[in-house]
Amino acid sequence: MTARKPSTVAEIAQLVGAELVGDGRRAIRGPASLQEAGPDEISFLANPRYAPQLATTRAAAVVVSRGEASAREGLALLRVDDPNRAFTRIVEAFAAPSTARSPGIHPTATVHAGARVAPGASIGAGCVVEDGADIADGVVLDALVYVGRGARIGAGTRAHPGVVIGDDVRVGARCILHAGCVLGSDGYGFEPAPDFKRDGWLKIPQCGTVVVEDDVEIGANTTIDRARFGATRIGAGAKLDNLVHVAHNVVVEPRVLLVAQVGIAGSSRIGAASILAGQVGIAGHVTLAPGVRVGAQSGVNHDLAPGDYFGSPARPLRESARDQSPGKRIQALRERVAALEAKVAALTRGETGS
Amino acid sequence: MTARKPSTVAEIAQLVGAELVGDGRRAIRGPASLQEAGPDEISFLANPRYAPQLATTRAAAVVVSRGEASAREGLALLRVDDPNRAFTRIVEAFAAPSTARSPGIHPTATVHAGARVAPGASIGAGCVVEDGADIADGVVLDALVYVGRGARIGAGTRAHPGVVIGDDVRVGARCILHAGCVLGSDGYGFEPAPDFKRDGWLKIPQCGTVVVEDDVEIGANTTIDRARFGATRIGAGAKLDNLVHVAHNVVVEPRVLLVAQVGIAGSSRIGAASILAGQVGIAGHVTLAPGVRVGAQSGVNHDLAPGDYFGSPARPLRESARDQSPGKRIQALRERVAALEAKVAALTRGETGS
Amino acid sequence: MTARKPSTVAEIAQLVGAELVGDGRRAIRGPASLQEAGPDEISFLANPRYAPQLATTRAAAVVVSRGEASAREGLALLRVDDPNRAFTRIVEAFAAPSTARSPGIHPTATVHAGARVAPGASIGAGCVVEDGADIADGVVLDALVYVGRGARIGAGTRAHPGVVIGDDVRVGARCILHAGCVLGSDGYGFEPAPDFKRDGWLKIPQCGTVVVEDDVEIGANTTIDRARFGATRIGAGAKLDNLVHVAHNVVVEPRVLLVAQVGIAGSSRIGAASILAGQVGIAGHVTLAPGVRVGAQSGVNHDLAPGDYFGSPARPLRESARDQSPGKRIQALRERVAALEAKVAALTRGETGS
Repeated sequence: MTARKPSTVAEIAQLVGAELVGDGRRAIRGPASLQEAGPDEISFLANPRYAPQLATTRAAAVVVSRGEASAREGLALLRVDDPNRAFTRIVEAFAAPSTARSPGIHPTATVHAGARVAPGASIGAGCVVEDGADIADGVVLDALVYVGRGARIGAGTRAHPGVVIGDDVRVGARCILHAGCVLGSDGYGFEPAPDFKRDGWLKIPQCGTVVVEDDVEIGANTTIDRARFGATRIGAGAKLDNLVHVAHNVVVEPRVLLVAQVGIAGSSRIGAASILAGQVGIAGHVTLAPGVRVGAQSGVNHDLAPGDYFGSPARPLRESARDQSPGKRIQALRERVAALEAKVAALTRGETGS
Repeated sequence: MTARKPSTVAEIAQLVGAELVGDGRRAIRGPASLQEAGPDEISFLANPRYAPQLATTRAAAVVVSRGEASAREGLALLRVDDPNRAFTRIVEAFAAPSTARSPGIHPTATVHAGARVAPGASIGAGCVVEDGADIADGVVLDALVYVGRGARIGAGTRAHPGVVIGDDVRVGARCILHAGCVLGSDGYGFEPAPDFKRDGWLKIPQCGTVVVEDDVEIGANTTIDRARFGATRIGAGAKLDNLVHVAHNVVVEPRVLLVAQVGIAGSSRIGAASILAGQVGIAGHVTLAPGVRVGAQSGVNHDLAPGDYFGSPARPLRESARDQSPGKRIQALRERVAALEAKVAALTRGETGS
Repeated sequence: MTARKPSTVAEIAQLVGAELVGDGRRAIRGPASLQEAGPDEISFLANPRYAPQLATTRAAAVVVSRGEASAREGLALLRVDDPNRAFTRIVEAFAAPSTARSPGIHPTATVHAGARVAPGASIGAGCVVEDGADIADGVVLDALVYVGRGARIGAGTRAHPGVVIGDDVRVGARCILHAGCVLGSDGYGFEPAPDFKRDGWLKIPQCGTVVVEDDVEIGANTTIDRARFGATRIGAGAKLDNLVHVAHNVVVEPRVLLVAQVGIAGSSRIGAASILAGQVGIAGHVTLAPGVRVGAQSGVNHDLAPGDYFGSPARPLRESARDQSPGKRIQALRERVAALEAKVAALTRGETGS
């Protein structure tokens, strides 16, 4: 994005439109955290939790918010409105130039004659693309990626190594599929055989597919099952972290965030722009309204109206509940009961009055 | 299974032996959910939760149970004993014809000269089969599947792309291994070195294997570790969902269901036909009786007799407990304590009698 | 390690320096658990939980601790200081000879001309090694392993099938990377676009890398994200189980154990030799002191001093807490409240005295 890397504190200040306090001439090699930065690196302070590290960092300069106090000797400050966003620009400026994959099909890739691969797509080493697959311009399949029969991948989408895209799965444009994620494994559906002891579970056919809309990011080793019929759907702009599980016929609406290790059971719907924190579990056949936020490790087994939730089973998160764990509430009750017991004992002995 | 797809409501009714109420002549293009169906699709109602959608669905026809009320204008009903099972037959009838893999070894596969591959097996693009592996008739290795030294795979088993079957692992007949699952990674076993600060953890050798019996299904990116010695065992007809972890020396007895993201620690035994819901954790060295059912996100750290369990740690599930979360029980107690406090205050002031 | 397999009870006793009580002449075919052993196998008793099986095992001999009572008819005892460690030596003695991979690059592997592969390294079938990668002597890439641009792998490290090592990731010496693990997927970082409804989440660039130090073991399908800048770090001698998630900028200090399905959110630090049991979740930006131990399924959302913790949110584990679940404590309180209610009712009716 930038023509060349900035090389001094002053150049960086100019890049992000910062008010510079301190020595702008020092050379900067790159970005680092407050704790790890050396004297030729720049850092940032966005989370107040790390404010004490301003006093001890060895960084040459730190990006801070407008209100931050003056610099100490030897530490330049770059004051900006949004330190997080400014630092992102700095990190990008120092990042290694993106080594774009050149278009074309690697000689070790296996592309079926019945597949359509746009001339601007890049199919890496060891990839396998089956009959009827349709791969648009600008798609990059890194290496060892599998694309099943009739699957379609939209323009500009990138699949990292080891991704598996099953038969008939549709992936939109500009998606990022991280290594090892699986789109289109069978949904998990069984019914007991009439003679269960002998025949066990009968498989319910999973004849649907997975539809991933545009601008979706899917984390490493995440799994998304195909629908029993119709489609499991990941809405535009949704971002899924690693090791997430999305069962058959789930609908994840646009711009939802699913943090690592979340699991969503079959046929549930997650409303637009909802955020499920790490390790949350959602039961089957429930609907979360748009904008719901669920705290880490919570379990949801019924529909949720808009709002914030926490716990297993998840309940509305109020300030009081946030401060009071079940343990604390039990302890408070215990103290009240002990006080009552003392008073009742006194009353029982015939003592009244204060 | 069916010679040709049914094309009208009446033909579908005949296929599943339904009592048809309404117009049987309408053309049907395929199955869909009540909410998503269009006027040329058929849907079903099995879960009473969705009954209100009968009034609003755009479907041409709906498969319902015998007791369901009469059809409204423009909506045909197909009354059957088991709507779920009938709809499964309909879904199958409309499914794309299964594109069977043709037998043989893809030219890009690497099959060791010391491996035995039955003539009816299909080894897909990019697969790697090591020395001494034994692959029976009707096995399908989709693509990019790895089969280790001396591993054996029974007739009719299918491994989806990216599956890893480790050295000496045995997989039975008619199994389905979904993409990215790993059978035979090392068990997780370490002991502290005599000089721990210097040498840390010493690896305990994991010399056993994994045995997967017949008719097992294993979900995408699920991992099953090899035993320290002997075998980690998945019993006949067990069905494992995605992202499940089974540690070394675990025994999963026949017809067990392990839902997504379940984790089972070492040497535990899960009794036949038990069902562990999503995200359940089982500690090491515990035994679950046959037929145990454990609710989602529960944690089990001791042996369980037959029955239903919930919570972390898991306790027997009774009706009362189901309705009373810890939070609700604490709240009820709080109200009783507040009432007592008021009464005791009154008594302390010398008031008695009603 | 041993020149040949021992073949009798006496030879095994000699191998592990055991005091032999009983018949040393019986032939031994291999090791097995107490429950599964047959009359030509040897077992061990380390966990007192299994002591009753001494009376019923069909094993020819059992390795026990020094204090164990005398053998019964037909069962030899091998008394040692540490049955677990002695049995490990026996398991190793009987293990199949390790079939070392021969050095060299398999003809089906794709190794970029700009990669450096030491002559003693073994690059298996279907592997892909990108430009600038550096692979040291003794490294074994099993098959279908991906090594990104500029990634470095230290001497003696083994990557099982399907491992993905991203661009610029550094892996130390003597590491074991189990099948399907992913090192260097993007960290999960997004910020809302100024026009969120239209543009949704903007990706925060993840320009850092992953550093895995020496002697680390990483489980199957585990994922470790690259840092936003700098490095996500796994310290020397740390051991990660299967399906673990480590987010961007996390520091796992040396000799830490992360059991299966643990998840650690961004920028947290896990102190040296800490142990996180299965399914534990750690929030972002928290620091665990060295030597912390956290019980299974616990959730940690603040810094932890050295000690043992349990629960969600995790609290110090004391003996009392271990015995008293919230349910038990609520029940105890309930009984106290009911007793109070009876007494207050009596007092309210005007009764006093005992």
